Amino acid sequence: MTQTYLEREILEQPEVIARQIEQETSHVGEIARAIRERDPRYIMLVARGSSDNAARYGQYLFGVANRLPVALATPSLFSMYNTPPRLDGALVIAVSQSGQSPDIVSVVEEASRQGAFTLAVTNDPESPLAAAAQDVIQLHAGREQSVAATKTYTTSLMALAMLSTALADDAERQEQLRRVPGWMQAVTARCDETIQRAERYRYMDACVVLSRGYNYATAFEVALKLKELTYVLAEPYSSADFKHGPVALVEEGFPVFAIVPEGVVAPELTEFLGGLKERGAELIVASGIDRALADAQTPLPLPTGIPEWLSPLVAVIPGQLFALGLTVAKGYEPDAPRGLRKVTLTQ
Amino acid sequence: MTQTYLEREILEQPEVIARQIEQETSHVGEIARAIRERDPRYIMLVARGSSDNAARYGQYLFGVANRLPVALATPSLFSMYNTPPRLDGALVIAVSQSGQSPDIVSVVEEASRQGAFTLAVTNDPESPLAAAAQDVIQLHAGREQSVAATKTYTTSLMALAMLSTALADDAERQEQLRRVPGWMQAVTARCDETIQRAERYRYMDACVVLSRGYNYATAFEVALKLKELTYVLAEPYSSADFKHGPVALVEEGFPVFAIVPEGVVAPELTEFLGGLKERGAELIVASGIDRALADAQTPLPLPTGIPEWLSPLVAVIPGQLFALGLTVAKGYEPDAPRGLRKVTLTQ
Repeated sequence: MTQTYLEREILEQPEVIARQIEQETSHVGEIARAIRERDPRYIMLVARGSSDNAARYGQYLFGVANRLPVALATPSLFSMYNTPPRLDGALVIAVSQSGQSPDIVSVVEEASRQGAFTLAVTNDPESPLAAAAQDVIQLHAGREQSVAATKTYTTSLMALAMLSTALADDAERQEQLRRVPGWMQAVTARCDETIQRAERYRYMDACVVLSRGYNYATAFEVALKLKELTYVLAEPYSSADFKHGPVALVEEGFPVFAIVPEGVVAPELTEFLGGLKERGAELIVASGIDRALADAQTPLPLPTGIPEWLSPLVAVIPGQLFALGLTVAKGYEPDAPRGLRKVTLTQ
Repeated sequence: MTQTYLEREILEQPEVIARQIEQETSHVGEIARAIRERDPRYIMLVARGSSDNAARYGQYLFGVANRLPVALATPSLFSMYNTPPRLDGALVIAVSQSGQSPDIVSVVEEASRQGAFTLAVTNDPESPLAAAAQDVIQLHAGREQSVAATKTYTTSLMALAMLSTALADDAERQEQLRRVPGWMQAVTARCDETIQRAERYRYMDACVVLSRGYNYATAFEVALKLKELTYVLAEPYSSADFKHGPVALVEEGFPVFAIVPEGVVAPELTEFLGGLKERGAELIVASGIDRALADAQTPLPLPTGIPEWLSPLVAVIPGQLFALGLTVAKGYEPDAPRGLRKVTLTQ
């Protein structure tokens, strides 16, 4: 079988991330200095699709490391209702691999007009978004040919992680960042095994994807890959929200894909999964924790010792590979999902 | 058949909302004066479950009418990661019908400690949440006996609508608010018909619930009712996000529940539904717009002339009734969904 663009791009991620750190760290340091002078009260993140999932990561990242509250923008306030909120005191960060979406660009233009500091995180430094923003963090992901975003997702996470670390001026975190390509490598090395594991789910129509905290973003991104590529109705949840109603869905055999990172959310998540297992749930678990893996019908091991704040960069990869495997098992075309274009122009 | 609590509480809503306006308007006016003196830069909304959907409404409401950006809190930053963000400049509003959830209370306690203005929106003025906040907007919904929230959801929306209107000191909006019970009445009058319409979906396992703008919240809430009560895997989307990937799910017969309010989002939403129909989607549409209803296999008419900003209070009711009808059609128990408790204590 010829290798698909999707598989190639998933496997490229360790190398792409290493290059991004190499090429962008010093520029991000300069941006952080400019932002610190402004002393923003909060961050407004602007994004759609996979980039919106990167923004979800930003909520925890900037909250914990920089004590900055993060608002996710509602672009239609700018583009349709024509009543942009006041943005004084805000640092506005727009994330878009293509940099093309008009509604994202319109938020940045309005924020610049109001005098807020605006930053674009994009793979295309020539895009309208890059032109509209005061500064740009480039993804350096190279061209992404598969319609489903993979390396532009993890490089978006890394761009935010680098910015947060530079803002905090934290040397220990800076060191930890550099270990990400190695951890990723440990997961991409399990490519064939993970793809093969997905076979069991050939006839799965629907599932839930669960995590909590930093990896709430991972749950959304894995669910999005499953929907785009395999047409499985995959719904993401924080385990806390899942208890407020949707847990009613779980019956014998109900599939739950869970991401269980090491760190503060691990005990609660592991216990919650134990309860789901008692109710007969089928568990697919990406984790570096033995107890969480032991409960799973399909364990997808992660390397151990990843700091929780960086785990979303690594933990999404088993989900990407699983989605690829399921696409192939179901007989679909990984590089050309039906009804999707690479660039979506939402107003 | 004995009337269920759920049905009774859905039908009570016009009366409950009228009482809430009557009893709470003057107090909300006082709260608005206190908030205006503080001149907050942004609002942080704190909620889970149905209340989180009310918070989503708040994003558009306060954005458009008050030009205030709204951040949805990530309670685990406070309760698990123990690194609460700086909240200077924030107005913190916590929404919880029970007022019991420890993580919601912990956000309010921390915000008060930091000197932010904190407000509780709750049905229980004796709850821990009410005690932790500096002021309280009561829902006046009376006891809600069904596990699935209905009247505490719409009264939460109304509490936010009243606050936004008082903050804007807008007499025209104040008048519009008073018309909500009448519009609701026009929908509850179609109770039997809507319940009967749901029969067609007896064997539906999964669906998507779509809207945009103010009614993004309605899409989430209708999806939550369907999940809680009927165990259908119902996923909410903004039509804009749906184009970024999940549209791939739509094939012949795929059910889409859409809420199409009059107002700025109507043309784009109606056109988008037309495209889904061409792809063979099965459309269930709650709308006051003839063209949107004409495309639907199952039209659920709303009264015409509802201002878009108030439409979520009315447009959710066909969804509640549809969920009730489907619960009965599938042979489940409306008042006691499996695996759910009325009060969920998330840490």
